Amino acid sequence: MSTAIFYHAGCPVCVDAEQMVADAIDHSKYNVEVVHLGEQSDRIAEAKMAGINSVPALVLNNQVFHINFGASINDLT
Amino acid sequence: MSTAIFYHAGCPVCVDAEQMVADAIDHSKYNVEVVHLGEQSDRIAEAKMAGINSVPALVLNNQVFHINFGASINDLT
Repeated sequence: MSTAIFYHAGCPVCVDAEQMVADAIDHSKYNVEVVHLGEQSDRIAEAKMAGINSVPALVLNNQVFHINFGASINDLT
Repeated sequence: MSTAIFYHAGCPVCVDAEQMVADAIDHSKYNVEVVHLGEQSDRIAEAKMAGINSVPALVLNNQVFHINFGASINDLT
């Protein structure tokens, strides 16, 4: 089972992307985790380490895909 | 059945995204079509109409998700 982590920050762009993208991922192949960095700020460091520059972003097997642009990760606290 | 169209232009960023994202999409929910705009330039107008500014991009049910950044659509001919 592969891992998909969708990082977002609750912004409108993020929520739209989350609903559509998280739903479109094949849940028979991927464990999908959704992380709200505004509420789980202890995971911002992890997201930066993964290579995330902005949210929303999707990490599939450690590969980062920035999806549209909601907010810079440096603006999250 | 919903429609997912992945537009790209053969750039390295595009190819990486295509392989991972097209594979991650739930093919039981989505018909996935991959369009190489470098080879199918007659579809650039369609992509612009859909709201695509850059490739690679994924259109899920008419909603555009720009994934990372490979090339501006205006640089494709």
